[in-house]
Amino acid sequence: MAPVQEVAPTEAAPPLEFLPGLNPVTMNTSEFRRRGKEMVDYMADYLEGIERRPVYPAVEPGYLRTLIPSSAPEEPEAYEDILGDIERIIMPGVTHWHSPYFFAYFPTASSYPALLADMLCGAIGCIGFSWAASPACTELETVMMDWLGKMLQLPDAFLAGSAGMGGGVIQGSASEATLVALLAARTKVTRQLQATFPELTQAAIMERLVAYSSDQAHSSVERAGLIGGVKLKAIPSDGNFAMRASALQEALERDKVVATLGTTNCCSFDNLLEVGPLCNKERVWLHIDAAYAGSAFICPEFRHLLDGVEFADSFNFNPHKWLLVNFDCSAMWVKQRTDLIGAFKLDPVYLMHGHQDSGLITDYRHWQIPLGRRFRSLKMWFVFRTYGVKGLQAYIRKHVQLAREFESLVRQDPRFEICMEVILGLVCFRLKGSNQLNETLLKRINGARKIHLVPCHLRDKFVLRFAICSREVESAHVQQAWEHIRELAEDILKPERA
Amino acid sequence: MAPVQEVAPTEAAPPLEFLPGLNPVTMNTSEFRRRGKEMVDYMADYLEGIERRPVYPAVEPGYLRTLIPSSAPEEPEAYEDILGDIERIIMPGVTHWHSPYFFAYFPTASSYPALLADMLCGAIGCIGFSWAASPACTELETVMMDWLGKMLQLPDAFLAGSAGMGGGVIQGSASEATLVALLAARTKVTRQLQATFPELTQAAIMERLVAYSSDQAHSSVERAGLIGGVKLKAIPSDGNFAMRASALQEALERDKVVATLGTTNCCSFDNLLEVGPLCNKERVWLHIDAAYAGSAFICPEFRHLLDGVEFADSFNFNPHKWLLVNFDCSAMWVKQRTDLIGAFKLDPVYLMHGHQDSGLITDYRHWQIPLGRRFRSLKMWFVFRTYGVKGLQAYIRKHVQLAREFESLVRQDPRFEICMEVILGLVCFRLKGSNQLNETLLKRINGARKIHLVPCHLRDKFVLRFAICSREVESAHVQQAWEHIRELAEDILKPERA
Repeated sequence: MAPVQEVAPTEAAPPLEFLPGLNPVTMNTSEFRRRGKEMVDYMADYLEGIERRPVYPAVEPGYLRTLIPSSAPEEPEAYEDILGDIERIIMPGVTHWHSPYFFAYFPTASSYPALLADMLCGAIGCIGFSWAASPACTELETVMMDWLGKMLQLPDAFLAGSAGMGGGVIQGSASEATLVALLAARTKVTRQLQATFPELTQAAIMERLVAYSSDQAHSSVERAGLIGGVKLKAIPSDGNFAMRASALQEALERDKVVATLGTTNCCSFDNLLEVGPLCNKERVWLHIDAAYAGSAFICPEFRHLLDGVEFADSFNFNPHKWLLVNFDCSAMWVKQRTDLIGAFKLDPVYLMHGHQDSGLITDYRHWQIPLGRRFRSLKMWFVFRTYGVKGLQAYIRKHVQLAREFESLVRQDPRFEICMEVILGLVCFRLKGSNQLNETLLKRINGARKIHLVPCHLRDKFVLRFAICSREVESAHVQQAWEHIRELAEDILKPERA
Repeated sequence: MAPVQEVAPTEAAPPLEFLPGLNPVTMNTSEFRRRGKEMVDYMADYLEGIERRPVYPAVEPGYLRTLIPSSAPEEPEAYEDILGDIERIIMPGVTHWHSPYFFAYFPTASSYPALLADMLCGAIGCIGFSWAASPACTELETVMMDWLGKMLQLPDAFLAGSAGMGGGVIQGSASEATLVALLAARTKVTRQLQATFPELTQAAIMERLVAYSSDQAHSSVERAGLIGGVKLKAIPSDGNFAMRASALQEALERDKVVATLGTTNCCSFDNLLEVGPLCNKERVWLHIDAAYAGSAFICPEFRHLLDGVEFADSFNFNPHKWLLVNFDCSAMWVKQRTDLIGAFKLDPVYLMHGHQDSGLITDYRHWQIPLGRRFRSLKMWFVFRTYGVKGLQAYIRKHVQLAREFESLVRQDPRFEICMEVILGLVCFRLKGSNQLNETLLKRINGARKIHLVPCHLRDKFVLRFAICSREVESAHVQQAWEHIRELAEDILKPERA
């Protein structure tokens, strides 16, 4: 290759037209102090008054484009105009995930200490792809993942400690964690096979790889297989929607299992104590995804649901769902950090630094898909300290109790049935009768916009999901929601009876 | 499959131990109002005083673990204690990316309107994976990506408009955008080949796929190939570190090209007007990654660097680098949105909604790797309106002018050389002489902790990168930095002369 030549100066640099008045028109620090405090009040007002807003918006697709200019303004606009447009343009189209009348999907976390930490994260604005890029960003994350691992009583093998082989990392989402686990498993198996059968090509190996998951696993598992080019086989779940060893044994060839704890559909639990030893015996990578349910395992009375995690190679759940740490914060642990790093490691010069090969430091870019990363562990630090473990446990227990309360309301009405044992904060229920009937009921519920629910299919049944979501949801909201559902059901059932 | 059975109630639900005092000990809304305003002042103080902090931390690996308890507190802690620990534990380990003495890597954006928008994003806290999950979140993103596309004068084919086939999406990072483009290309080529040669297996096709990129492309391109299981061939760049058609022609079989605009090493530009038509002729997917440089294309005098984008299938750059929109905000456009969607689309029932198949709506979960997504377009909206296009252009021009100023300082010193034409905000320079000499210089620079730089390799030379990064950097900082570098060089060169 040709050596670098000294480069001559550019002959005629294009003239640079400056705006001398740039600073006055944009926002300076003292203006930010004022506007920031105003925004804090707006945030507080929004969250304080959220239950007075319709939980689900009434807009039609394309509503926003008609309210907004078709291109960016040439000249700066007044901040008042932007602020005013929040209520005029944005809020009418927002689904209010933190309304106490929101019972859809699964919760997404929101708490004041997390919001404060995220503000700080924004101001620091470092990109923590390597230790050197901001040591505090990397080190607080490692320690917070240890804290959280201990709260869940994870086996020591998953903790970084000061000399562990494992450790935790914050991923953006459970989908990413699943993909990262699949890629690590793929790389590990490929290397093992190449060592044993050096004549095999990469493609020949890829063709033989199979990943297994419960047929109740989240769609992100299927996607991870699609992205990583690994075939996915769904293992039929049992009557409780759990994957059992007997079914897996039948299907098992050599590869990887993704087991799921607390499926999205109905919060069922795979039998890890059966599946785990089988995976270890067959040297199959076991990844456990407990995206929603994981937060509950900080309570001793729910920890048994995680029994068998000791057989896993990687484990993931989302504090950004149910542990009061705002999105995004998906917690992932591995027993062998070298397995993750091996799947990704590439070291360009501009990312090298002095401590690179000391073995003492963690460069989290090797643990994830993107290069850049925010200082997300601040949120965990603020939340864990503000609530304390006891406060977090009380929060989980309150949600579980509200779910049981809703369950018992449903059970008192003989026209309804509960479709799945209520273990945590999700109640799967339906009107006894046709799917059509239940689809109509759901349409009426969401059309009325007082509460918001989404459905699922369990086997061939159309089922309504009632998930306890909001930090502010109380018994009174649950009772109101149930009364509302009953009234709507009444309306639907009346003509049938008449 | 067995039909769903009505499930009997749990016999003995474990007793739920409540903390009656939960609310008082945690943070309520009025406490948030107070603490939020305090945090706004902390943020403003931090950014206002950032240049008085050493830009690079003096800590050793493992510093933080010794300052922090080994597990989370059982009981809630006082907020004052947390706040106090920011300066005690976090700040000593922070690399201050927004210091005007930070000239490392590439800039990461920070502006007050973006911070305000991110606060709002946190409070709304919606997860916008589908249109229905929060229509405003999806619709503002589509319109903001159109605004930004127009600012860059992208061909209409990349805009969503009200009836376009293309459109934009915010990805978390350029790495994700590259991976998504590669997966879309892989799916498209695979389907074409399967249609023509139905006897080919998936694995046989995968084995034949090749992606090309400039040998100067970012490591994330290599990683995307690794993840997607597609072989990557590096096309040797020319004397200006640009990929040329002649070199590509030699290598081209059937597949995909990732062209890179403004490489991380030295900000070189591939020749799109040569490479583009060749890709179109050979029906090769062309993805253009201009992660850093892309922001400059809002200035008419730099737009010519993007000429040839009309041949691309997908284009990406990072407003979170140089366009004042805080991380993360990586802007990606495609001409055929169905190409992206086709690579990912899976539709579980719990994510279906009424407008699903209307063709009117966008479900961004089909455009990206993760499922969840924050309301990131608010940051674009606030920034574009607060600065106006003219304000943003002035910002870019100021940075370019500062880079030219540094370049001319370097050129006045005959002991130094400029290694690459300075086109935007990056200056690649070195002491004339050995790599060893330059490595020593860099070590002294970063050791002194007054300014922060990272190196790169250009061909076989070790080169120092001086990137204009901070929003607050002024001519005086650049001059001080140069004086400092000269002094350190003096020290190194003296003994050699003696």
